[in-house]
Amino acid sequence: MRQWITAFVCVSALGTFAYYATRNAEDPATSSTLLLSNVAEIRHDHSPRNLRDALGEFTNIIGKEHVSTSDKDIENHATSSWSSHPAKSTERSFCVLWPGSTDEVSQIMKVCHKRHIPVIGYSGGTSLEGHFTPTRHGVSIDFGRMNKILSFHKEDLDVVVQPAIAWEALNDHLDQEGLFFPPDPGPGAMIGGMVGTGCSGTNAYRYGTIREWVLSLTVVLADGTVIKTRQRPRKSSAGYDLTKLFIGSEGTLGLVTEATLKITTKPESTSVAVAAFPSIRNAADCVAKVVGKGVPVAAVELLDDNQIKCINEAGLTSRAWPETATIFFKFAGTKAGVKEQIAQVQALAQGAYSTSFEFAKNQEEQDELWSARKEALWSVLAVKKPDDRVWTGDVAVPMSRLPDLIEATKEDLAKSGLFASIVGHVGDGNFHAMILYNDQQRTRAEAVVHRMVKRAIDMEGTVSGEHGVGLVKRDYLSHELGQTTVDAMRQIKRAFDPLCLLNCDKVVRMQDTGERSTQKW
Amino acid sequence: MRQWITAFVCVSALGTFAYYATRNAEDPATSSTLLLSNVAEIRHDHSPRNLRDALGEFTNIIGKEHVSTSDKDIENHATSSWSSHPAKSTERSFCVLWPGSTDEVSQIMKVCHKRHIPVIGYSGGTSLEGHFTPTRHGVSIDFGRMNKILSFHKEDLDVVVQPAIAWEALNDHLDQEGLFFPPDPGPGAMIGGMVGTGCSGTNAYRYGTIREWVLSLTVVLADGTVIKTRQRPRKSSAGYDLTKLFIGSEGTLGLVTEATLKITTKPESTSVAVAAFPSIRNAADCVAKVVGKGVPVAAVELLDDNQIKCINEAGLTSRAWPETATIFFKFAGTKAGVKEQIAQVQALAQGAYSTSFEFAKNQEEQDELWSARKEALWSVLAVKKPDDRVWTGDVAVPMSRLPDLIEATKEDLAKSGLFASIVGHVGDGNFHAMILYNDQQRTRAEAVVHRMVKRAIDMEGTVSGEHGVGLVKRDYLSHELGQTTVDAMRQIKRAFDPLCLLNCDKVVRMQDTGERSTQKW
Repeated sequence: MRQWITAFVCVSALGTFAYYATRNAEDPATSSTLLLSNVAEIRHDHSPRNLRDALGEFTNIIGKEHVSTSDKDIENHATSSWSSHPAKSTERSFCVLWPGSTDEVSQIMKVCHKRHIPVIGYSGGTSLEGHFTPTRHGVSIDFGRMNKILSFHKEDLDVVVQPAIAWEALNDHLDQEGLFFPPDPGPGAMIGGMVGTGCSGTNAYRYGTIREWVLSLTVVLADGTVIKTRQRPRKSSAGYDLTKLFIGSEGTLGLVTEATLKITTKPESTSVAVAAFPSIRNAADCVAKVVGKGVPVAAVELLDDNQIKCINEAGLTSRAWPETATIFFKFAGTKAGVKEQIAQVQALAQGAYSTSFEFAKNQEEQDELWSARKEALWSVLAVKKPDDRVWTGDVAVPMSRLPDLIEATKEDLAKSGLFASIVGHVGDGNFHAMILYNDQQRTRAEAVVHRMVKRAIDMEGTVSGEHGVGLVKRDYLSHELGQTTVDAMRQIKRAFDPLCLLNCDKVVRMQDTGERSTQKW
Repeated sequence: MRQWITAFVCVSALGTFAYYATRNAEDPATSSTLLLSNVAEIRHDHSPRNLRDALGEFTNIIGKEHVSTSDKDIENHATSSWSSHPAKSTERSFCVLWPGSTDEVSQIMKVCHKRHIPVIGYSGGTSLEGHFTPTRHGVSIDFGRMNKILSFHKEDLDVVVQPAIAWEALNDHLDQEGLFFPPDPGPGAMIGGMVGTGCSGTNAYRYGTIREWVLSLTVVLADGTVIKTRQRPRKSSAGYDLTKLFIGSEGTLGLVTEATLKITTKPESTSVAVAAFPSIRNAADCVAKVVGKGVPVAAVELLDDNQIKCINEAGLTSRAWPETATIFFKFAGTKAGVKEQIAQVQALAQGAYSTSFEFAKNQEEQDELWSARKEALWSVLAVKKPDDRVWTGDVAVPMSRLPDLIEATKEDLAKSGLFASIVGHVGDGNFHAMILYNDQQRTRAEAVVHRMVKRAIDMEGTVSGEHGVGLVKRDYLSHELGQTTVDAMRQIKRAFDPLCLLNCDKVVRMQDTGERSTQKW
């Protein structure tokens, strides 16, 4: 700052040319990016008096019935049994708030801004990488009361919702109208968190990720300012695409209080087919052929032999499956279109040495076939030992690298001695490894996840296709994207949230604590 | 700035609580948005000595054969006959540069950053709203030499290109492989400018806009820093979506020097159908039905009676068309799928009182039917008087409002006494009005465009569906989005470009000049 002021004085005193001499590319006042070493010290105020006074103000805004300091509520908003971030017992908020409107959220943020109190948003709590763990303490804002459909425009194929509506609940409403909202992440996920992580799911291959299904967001910024990113037209080229900037920002740039979502008509006809393969490489080859031919299937999901074993063992489906690499296809379109697609895919599967190919002739058979894909995560949870935890990590690579990545990762997982299965949205080059580990095996699990991430980056891939980076993968970003790109992200974080109040520590570091969350590269 | 410093001194002297008292929501140092009144004075340096020295440095970087100060080159990079911004004769760069690589662009930006010289990027020059007019003088960077396909990954369905490749040239290459890149804006448009405006075209209804087809961008920032927004996987949730932030930023946040684009397989089968309607409302009703039923047509283009008149008069197609509101449909998919879609659309058109419905039985008939849509703009140019100009403005609204908007706009255009036609990407709620006017009629044309924009905003629409805002529509943004949203955009602009070097004045104002480009609201 001082350097900037000195430079400015020079302008007046010596004229413009002397001024240049004092500049350099790393002058923070004129730089386009922000180095970690140039971030001003974060000054949150956790003094008892400040927190007590804040609590009084929160109570005035939303009523005491919507403010909690109970241990149970605080605990429930700190971490989850499925999070891969081992939250410390000190990583807790001092209170949980349940606001009822955008205006109340704005008022809360104004208090927190004035008092330098950090804030974390919370909706479904299904995230995996430590997104909502309050490493900076402060306040958790639970959007639970803001769970309504505010308006439904059937002719325009859009719907305006609050952040705490679950995607399944939204689709229950839309189903009656013959419509649906395609993004389908894990069960229980809610729109607020789905926007935050930039989620997708099995439908992404055909319909795209949530990025393609949000028209507009109402967002409360760090200082309480409310913005609405767009009106409701299907497309717009008016100004910067703030909508997309907030999608995937993991609550670090603003709190989403309303979302206008695109919706679409349910396909006239759907079906499911299941193809088994002698090896995971044969299965991956089949996927590459289906994608390369441009067959417009609705979903292509790969489950490895271990995953099928879990499903059989858990007994959550009505039948047993051959324990080998298996692809689950979903088809959607007109009746003739679906029939045609099934025939195309069957031929391609045979060309990739499929050992079986079964497709559903009616809705009941569809449900039966798809049930195995649907129960994948639950089946792993069902077979785990009582003190095991599940680490669900995802990576994505360009399609052509997927067979190599999956093969190498399976081999490495086997070598680690940990039980692990692979489930993949393989049409997008994206897969999940679900690894079981207990406290003694944590370091081994960390190492194998680390190698998987490194392998994906080395293959021009990404550390996360759909889960986001949170705390666990944050320090990989510079390896994936380069340091200047991370510094550009940090510049945006500071621009919108100079006091680092919103989910501070996530996505990009704003303070150099000396510790690193990742292993040696 | 002084206020910030005072506040900071208070912290040390009086402790944290005294500090709060000096704060307010509009303290620029902690605010999430940037008011126009809080932007620091822009200090570009146009002194002859500075420009002469800069020219020497540019010549060292790219060689004298790629630096021009000729009047003709400067003129060619200032405006175009199709731009709706009436560029003043003083709005000129002092030189045009043709760099050959990302590194050269970075070196040029470092010179301009050091010397406070403003910069505008230029590729196809087809933009309409004054995007590349050098209102701040400085340097035009023409990417003309950077027009190559750098790598082609057939199996991954992506291609890495430089900014000055035209989309038609790219598709000529891809065609040999049975692939294509869907965004299809005006002929001559190049990837750099297409990314800059967030373009779309007739294929957007089925395939989405360019936002959905860019995987990654290499960008030179205002201080010369080079960033790459992503690697090549089809999807990623790793960090802020910088790719999307640069798309549609009209060269104000960075200069795109490389783009990794998704591509897709060409459909097995395509066709075209043309349906005529007694009124534009009947035509619009038909579109609403096709969209509402979710028929996966590839394009839905509406041409009004005036547009058909121009086509007939210009004689650019091999036949004459009934001079009434007409919809051009494109179909794509499997053979059976296309046949099925044509039947569905024919039935829906009849239900909307179509007076004729014709579909192509072979490629030759397809080309003949589509030729009318393709020649729309050229036919208007062919019938205009020598001193007429064409004002091509676009707006978009939610689908259900489109019939009202088109009807009211047609009526208003007729009343204005100016000749105008309407061509619409109506499946997206988006249309263009092409208005002929001469110098004496400029004010009348401005007024009718102003009313069209206001009408669209009042119907929850946008001032531009695909052309961007440039200079001409910039001051409408606060009406469409609200002042706080524009202030959030301004915050981003300052964060990436504190000296306002990159296409300064476009998208968001960074200086209050007192004048307004829009009429009274």
